[in-house]
Amino acid sequence: MQGYAIKGLVALSLIAWPVAASADALVDNVTGITLDADGKVVRFTGLLMSLDGKVTKLLSAKDKRPDKLDWRADMKGRVLIPGFVDSHGHVLELGFRQLELDLSGARTLAEAQARIRAYAAANPDRKWILGGGWNQEAWGLGRFPTAADLDAAVPDRPVWLARADGHAGWANSVALREAGVTAKTVSPAGGRIEKSGGQPSGVFVDAAQALVQKVVPQPLPKERDLAFLKAQALLLANGVTATADMGTSVDDWLTYRRMGDIGNLRIRVISYGAGIEDTVRIGGKGPTPWLYQDRLRLAGVKLYGDGALGSRGAWLKAPYADAPRESGLGFLSDTVLRNLMSRAAMDGYQVAVHAIGDATNAEVLGAIDELSETYKGDRRWRIEHAQIVDPADLKRFGQHGTIASMQPVHATSDRVMAEARLGPARLAGAYAWRTMLANGVPLAFGSDYPVESPDPFAGWAAAISREDAQGQPPGGWRPEEAVTREQAWRAFTQGGAYAAFAETKFGRLAPGQRADFLIVDRDPTAASPAELRTTQVQETWVGGEKMWSRK
Amino acid sequence: MQGYAIKGLVALSLIAWPVAASADALVDNVTGITLDADGKVVRFTGLLMSLDGKVTKLLSAKDKRPDKLDWRADMKGRVLIPGFVDSHGHVLELGFRQLELDLSGARTLAEAQARIRAYAAANPDRKWILGGGWNQEAWGLGRFPTAADLDAAVPDRPVWLARADGHAGWANSVALREAGVTAKTVSPAGGRIEKSGGQPSGVFVDAAQALVQKVVPQPLPKERDLAFLKAQALLLANGVTATADMGTSVDDWLTYRRMGDIGNLRIRVISYGAGIEDTVRIGGKGPTPWLYQDRLRLAGVKLYGDGALGSRGAWLKAPYADAPRESGLGFLSDTVLRNLMSRAAMDGYQVAVHAIGDATNAEVLGAIDELSETYKGDRRWRIEHAQIVDPADLKRFGQHGTIASMQPVHATSDRVMAEARLGPARLAGAYAWRTMLANGVPLAFGSDYPVESPDPFAGWAAAISREDAQGQPPGGWRPEEAVTREQAWRAFTQGGAYAAFAETKFGRLAPGQRADFLIVDRDPTAASPAELRTTQVQETWVGGEKMWSRK
Repeated sequence: MQGYAIKGLVALSLIAWPVAASADALVDNVTGITLDADGKVVRFTGLLMSLDGKVTKLLSAKDKRPDKLDWRADMKGRVLIPGFVDSHGHVLELGFRQLELDLSGARTLAEAQARIRAYAAANPDRKWILGGGWNQEAWGLGRFPTAADLDAAVPDRPVWLARADGHAGWANSVALREAGVTAKTVSPAGGRIEKSGGQPSGVFVDAAQALVQKVVPQPLPKERDLAFLKAQALLLANGVTATADMGTSVDDWLTYRRMGDIGNLRIRVISYGAGIEDTVRIGGKGPTPWLYQDRLRLAGVKLYGDGALGSRGAWLKAPYADAPRESGLGFLSDTVLRNLMSRAAMDGYQVAVHAIGDATNAEVLGAIDELSETYKGDRRWRIEHAQIVDPADLKRFGQHGTIASMQPVHATSDRVMAEARLGPARLAGAYAWRTMLANGVPLAFGSDYPVESPDPFAGWAAAISREDAQGQPPGGWRPEEAVTREQAWRAFTQGGAYAAFAETKFGRLAPGQRADFLIVDRDPTAASPAELRTTQVQETWVGGEKMWSRK
Repeated sequence: MQGYAIKGLVALSLIAWPVAASADALVDNVTGITLDADGKVVRFTGLLMSLDGKVTKLLSAKDKRPDKLDWRADMKGRVLIPGFVDSHGHVLELGFRQLELDLSGARTLAEAQARIRAYAAANPDRKWILGGGWNQEAWGLGRFPTAADLDAAVPDRPVWLARADGHAGWANSVALREAGVTAKTVSPAGGRIEKSGGQPSGVFVDAAQALVQKVVPQPLPKERDLAFLKAQALLLANGVTATADMGTSVDDWLTYRRMGDIGNLRIRVISYGAGIEDTVRIGGKGPTPWLYQDRLRLAGVKLYGDGALGSRGAWLKAPYADAPRESGLGFLSDTVLRNLMSRAAMDGYQVAVHAIGDATNAEVLGAIDELSETYKGDRRWRIEHAQIVDPADLKRFGQHGTIASMQPVHATSDRVMAEARLGPARLAGAYAWRTMLANGVPLAFGSDYPVESPDPFAGWAAAISREDAQGQPPGGWRPEEAVTREQAWRAFTQGGAYAAFAETKFGRLAPGQRADFLIVDRDPTAASPAELRTTQVQETWVGGEKMWSRK
């Protein structure tokens, strides 16, 4: 073969970016509120932006408006705030939750069974009944549901339903049979087959879910596209303009590319690959560039250190208070975790590790300590959830720039269950947002949708009040860990951008930032927590384009 | 969920395309030669192009040059012709052939063994010895090679080597053991385990290759990237500016995306997915748009109707002349073929079916006849190779716009083997380029690299002379099927573009077409076939950018 050097590249610019930088658009007559880079409130009445969708200037009432504008909107005094960044969500799962059977909010097993029966009757052509959103904690059963409970609703077709947190699955007898799971089937590492009298009872925790999932038909690419569009529409309607996708598979990524290629990608997706293999299959030797005008990037890898609290998969240093022989599931040995993190960090991928239990948080912090000696510089190690932390470990988050990616609504949803699982002694380091900030930890807030609603106002209200949607408990649960309104807002906007290496691109309204903003029905800096929670988004703009508006 | 309609999209253009359409670049003082849309030779001395890399005008010597140019090159009278379109190649395989052991050109088994032994010694860290390019026909063995032949070169590590045509693989004993292949292993549908005394002899034909491939380590994404860059450089050096990739896997596609995302995609790749599943995983509900300034598109699906002639996998209506009990391997039943083609066509994917033997060509033509009743319009069904066609079927290619995608060099490489396999009677419809044209069939030429060299001048010379590189046989093999110089050129340029639905984008030099052109060392319209074959490319330009130049 002859020399194949690419040489003499001609200095022709193939894409001519906007030549007339003075061509501007003005969103005027707004009650504009944003945080500055220091987290202080800034007010403005006009937002000037360039035609490529970036903020060029915030104008106060007394600032003269440009004479020459390509385009102008009068917002008639309505409130304009930055779009939210959800730092932890599962985009396609959110969409599938809407396309499949959704058990969210079922208050009893009987109600869940009725919904399942009705769905099966309404969908006679579906070979499998798939869905999720169940939560036995809300049903007051004192146990997991069983295959027999499901058989009572659907005896003749396989049924497979994800727990609300995605950390357990519930199968009926036909599904167990199709999966070939019997009394002899052994729980895999990092997973647990729930058993009763030696027989599989129907619930599979964490890695054991794969035993059934392997026979569940995979969604078609066109169904993935539909799920994406459903999720995107719901996120935009909630005021989320950018989101981390925590566990992108190759097929998820191909969906995002399809959407981006035909101009259907309207939110910003910061993608963390589902494990090392998929991450590397997508990104090759490192993260991708920002694509589609900063609407998509593979930033790093998502790893799972343990399960969740509700299914007792969270890995605790001491046994569960309500199950003294269980301590949860540590998914990865110290060595394997370090190897995976190292393999990712070596190629410049950002590492985000799911850690719910205090044992897992300690393990990941230990791995970060060790790896930081090799992988220096601005790594922004992320711990996802950082939910139950041994108070002795809380200060370790402040080292090596480790980011706590937390979900305020979890605290209010989990409260009763967490007290039962942990007992009072271990609550000191649980959902400890304020302590994190006090220790100098960069905080990024999210919702963990579809485990919770993607509504950031619910999260914002929970973060400042520690009360749930019913105002329970009055005055808040362990209110000493509440954060201020501005701190919570920051963690839901620029904190999320920072956690994704995107702080120069979006997260607040300032010159050079993408013009991602919302028109909302009230001033969130002046609303009570209860009022804040009911804030309605009226319009959602991404990159200077109106992407959604309430009818 | 509230209404999620995307409404009120603001009419802001986010990307401003070049405003100053008059800003032009001129490649001047050339001996420019192209074909027009009718296949007639056009000559010019200057090529004017816009800054986005499209031809705006061809200038004759007497045409006034624009006063104002952004950029100008003086080619000092050198010959400028359109870039070639290779209608049938395997991009990553071409790269891997260069990164792995390459047995191309080995003239005896002993020479092949020596090369294998040397490669293994030079690569002690490779757990598997992988490569390809062997052709037992050239070795005068009268048989396939065996595992024992390979063991003599490498006894201690697994070895797996692809035949030159990719339709057979050769394993040593360690590889057989790792794959678990024994005397009891049954040949799968569409494949054949070569046996000797009841034992697997070491060669696996067509679908049987999967028995070993499943244990061969898959290349890492970064190795795929490297393979792509190697292939791209070699294609550019040969003057290929656009190529069909006949069988793109999901991982191949992810490689192209990575390259496109960081500006490393310098040739145009028209991708045909490897089977329906990968095609749909990539494209979802239809072909992708053209991406990266017309440098990448998933256009359709590649299906395999049969194997190849050299390994007796081509499916013949009557038995092989040199193996009277064999008729080859039809991979797909009529029903399955129609179902696959229909499933692709339903979503608007173009269908390209590999058909070498006369039985397969008849089968695919029959399927096209039937499907054309349902899938009307401009479908451009492609038959890849169309190599051995029953003379009674030749006219059927002219129906439904079916494209014959053929590789002229195959005729010269296969000649002796084809005569042995087929006997004289069946040669009438073999490699029948001229008859195809006479029947009004759109012809697209390619090389089938890495089975053959990607050099289009070798193909062009073979197409007009039916002689091989040594001028054998003098006067050409069945010269009545030679085509004219212009016909061959057209099939290697705009014929390939047409076959890929790209004729409005590239394939010739005319206003509106992408400025894909070559500087070569002679006038190909004035060279003898032997001279034509030795034409050297000096520079390769894609979209108005110089992408390669000879040192």
